[in-house]
Amino acid sequence: MSQKSVGAFYGVGVGPGDPELITRKAERILRAVDWIFLPSGRRSGNSFVRRIVEPLGLPEGKFRPVFLCMSRDRADDSNAYSRAASEIVAELRQGKSVAWITEGDPLFYSTFLHVNEALRPYPEVRVEIIPGVTSTSAAAARVGLPVARLDERVAVVPAAYGMRRLPALLDEFATVFLLKVHAVFDELLAVLASVRGPIRTVYLEQVGTPAERVVTDLESLRGQELPYFSLVILRTEKQE
Amino acid sequence: MSQKSVGAFYGVGVGPGDPELITRKAERILRAVDWIFLPSGRRSGNSFVRRIVEPLGLPEGKFRPVFLCMSRDRADDSNAYSRAASEIVAELRQGKSVAWITEGDPLFYSTFLHVNEALRPYPEVRVEIIPGVTSTSAAAARVGLPVARLDERVAVVPAAYGMRRLPALLDEFATVFLLKVHAVFDELLAVLASVRGPIRTVYLEQVGTPAERVVTDLESLRGQELPYFSLVILRTEKQE
Repeated sequence: MSQKSVGAFYGVGVGPGDPELITRKAERILRAVDWIFLPSGRRSGNSFVRRIVEPLGLPEGKFRPVFLCMSRDRADDSNAYSRAASEIVAELRQGKSVAWITEGDPLFYSTFLHVNEALRPYPEVRVEIIPGVTSTSAAAARVGLPVARLDERVAVVPAAYGMRRLPALLDEFATVFLLKVHAVFDELLAVLASVRGPIRTVYLEQVGTPAERVVTDLESLRGQELPYFSLVILRTEKQE
Repeated sequence: MSQKSVGAFYGVGVGPGDPELITRKAERILRAVDWIFLPSGRRSGNSFVRRIVEPLGLPEGKFRPVFLCMSRDRADDSNAYSRAASEIVAELRQGKSVAWITEGDPLFYSTFLHVNEALRPYPEVRVEIIPGVTSTSAAAARVGLPVARLDERVAVVPAAYGMRRLPALLDEFATVFLLKVHAVFDELLAVLASVRGPIRTVYLEQVGTPAERVVTDLESLRGQELPYFSLVILRTEKQE
């Protein structure tokens, strides 16, 4: 082993989509590091997270795309993360600094969690995580809906998992964020029709991007094909 | 009425405490606006949120502190917010732009919610909300604990409200953030002792500030006086 010290590894959240919602810390670190690894779709070779940092004008040669399938079968992705982890470690051992960038926050439904997992066999790697603005915060801000007041509770629930339990969640939580609603949207409409009491509902997709869409009449979306990056905010009005 | 257009009102989240976790958008708006209103404690005349934006070097004369009691009796604060709202509206009507800054995110347990409420009688006010990094994201990042992977659920629960229901929450949610744990800490220890299964627990206060404190052995805090800005992350390990 050489005496050269191992470089720093950063998990950097770049926020929900609007490049201005990148933090000052994320910007500083992305300018300072030697390499920026990022997840990339197979087809485009360019990714959503890459577009978020575009306005920072970082040198093109600094980016190292890691191709992921993002399919239901996670085995391919698991291999991709392991390969990325060894590439990252190789750079760190040469004293280079490396950032992995993710949309939103690195610990909140992000690819960073898988990279971090893949880095476990390398205990010498020091990881610093830079939190980011989440898509849930950005969605609520876009429509001005309170998330939590005083002693209120908040739940974040991937929709596919939570439809059956939704009425019970709405009894206990003032705000429920349903993520990835695209696959269960008509089922969601049925559950909402059966729930008593006033509930404010808003559907949002790709908040803070040019493709942003905000719909308050959920019925109007019945039967439509909805994208993956979609969420619904459910806000009970009991305590207001 | 004059023809002068009404100025813009911004609810600006400045993040959890580390000035570098201010977003580029928050920084731009705070530099651009004519006035920055902010909550301020009666004793110090200076506030936590004021210290977060200190490194931006904004002109001192731009700040307009609003004195709040932050007591259990909300009547005094309600009057303070109403007074602040009319001061804000008076400025906006003169075409001035105004920001209200809050720690963390404006819609997540923040003073902005009360100001926004107090502005309801003034429908001419256009409000833009700038989301910020939350204390929960910052706490998880500080200790590298995953918040949500794939289809996991997340709950945010003010501790005083949720102790009795905590075991049930831990069955349903992969990560539970307990806020304001100072008042119920010994009760929390008792509940945790009764819960089965591996749960990672971390106590954090004032994350990202010089007064930051991180404790993984919760037992060691028994009987201690804890501050208001404290939280506990509970992470079930079932799905890992």
